[in-house]
Amino acid sequence: MALVKLYGMTMSWNVTRCVAALEEAGVEYDVVPIDFGAGEHKTPDHLARNPFGQMPVLQDGDFYVWESRAICKYTCRKNKPELLKEGNLKESTMVDVWLEVEAHQYTAALEPIILECLVRPMFRRATDQKTVEDNLVKLKKVLEVYEARLTKCKYLAGDFLSLADLNHVSATACLAATPYASLFDAYPHVKAWWSGLMARPSVQMITALKKPYFQNSV
Amino acid sequence: MALVKLYGMTMSWNVTRCVAALEEAGVEYDVVPIDFGAGEHKTPDHLARNPFGQMPVLQDGDFYVWESRAICKYTCRKNKPELLKEGNLKESTMVDVWLEVEAHQYTAALEPIILECLVRPMFRRATDQKTVEDNLVKLKKVLEVYEARLTKCKYLAGDFLSLADLNHVSATACLAATPYASLFDAYPHVKAWWSGLMARPSVQMITALKKPYFQNSV
Repeated sequence: MALVKLYGMTMSWNVTRCVAALEEAGVEYDVVPIDFGAGEHKTPDHLARNPFGQMPVLQDGDFYVWESRAICKYTCRKNKPELLKEGNLKESTMVDVWLEVEAHQYTAALEPIILECLVRPMFRRATDQKTVEDNLVKLKKVLEVYEARLTKCKYLAGDFLSLADLNHVSATACLAATPYASLFDAYPHVKAWWSGLMARPSVQMITALKKPYFQNSV
Repeated sequence: MALVKLYGMTMSWNVTRCVAALEEAGVEYDVVPIDFGAGEHKTPDHLARNPFGQMPVLQDGDFYVWESRAICKYTCRKNKPELLKEGNLKESTMVDVWLEVEAHQYTAALEPIILECLVRPMFRRATDQKTVEDNLVKLKKVLEVYEARLTKCKYLAGDFLSLADLNHVSATACLAATPYASLFDAYPHVKAWWSGLMARPSVQMITALKKPYFQNSV
């Protein structure tokens, strides 16, 4: 059994966000399923791992880390620091900028679309098309900025792969199972960036983990 | 004129989040007002600083940084790295965890309350009390976790002040101008942590910057 454990359900894009970092950093780890439906995330055992009772949690020996993006940073800092560029003030700052953009611009618009199109139907709840449309408008505006950025450099933070790119993979992999799978077609540089990421074994691992949940996915 | 410029309106808690970091890091800077009402954030000049057309933006010589939390990290990394503890794997990870908690748990619940109670009335729009109540429930759950955490250590990431604490200051300073100014009274360790922060000159600077906008504030 690996020393590093990732607690969570791999249906969750917050959990598979960490899988991308762990795979890219070459870490040996086990995924420990947490049964969300049975409320296992709110048991004393899991609350001892994360006082907010959420997933994912990473356990590395006796050290517990939660919040998916903090887990990804820890994983890189310990095992593959070049994905953060922390030794270089300007490059590390550009990584930080695009990590924040992922969370507060890109995923903030994409997540409600995935929730409405994929997660609510799983629970036999209707998709709120107004929410989908509103967030598609936001996401397209974000993609315009990405298109301009990726015209100037190969990856988001510069001409180097970084955690800023990898943190996009998990939610983006879900987009393919929605009716908006061809969204990137209008943004050729974004599409090329995504195709490049899709060729990576770490991203293929996420695709495999999503398949049981999202049949039409990726 | 200082080499470092912070573009934005100091009414915005995203802008004053950066002020806390700049003040704590001892950086000499000028605030360059951007007239949100006149759409100055969407002009070509400002879009050249931040392609998303948002505030704040930090200019340091010819280097531009946007996304408030990336600006704060840059400011600390360059001028006061001990606020990030990046030399220490476990401590820096705890700073990251609580930086994420600030963004995705604490401010995610507090921001809608400030928007409804302070910002909407400025534009003669009614407060949506249901949104306020829903987010108060969320915020109280977050504060229960904070209370337990601050019973064990003096600051959020450990027994040391870090950017994780400072990033809370800006939105929290607005809470005092809402009808929920006494919210922390039920959480004595949170209240003591906040009182300690309030005594810092950086936080007093934010209070002074908020006063013209929020008359009853802090």
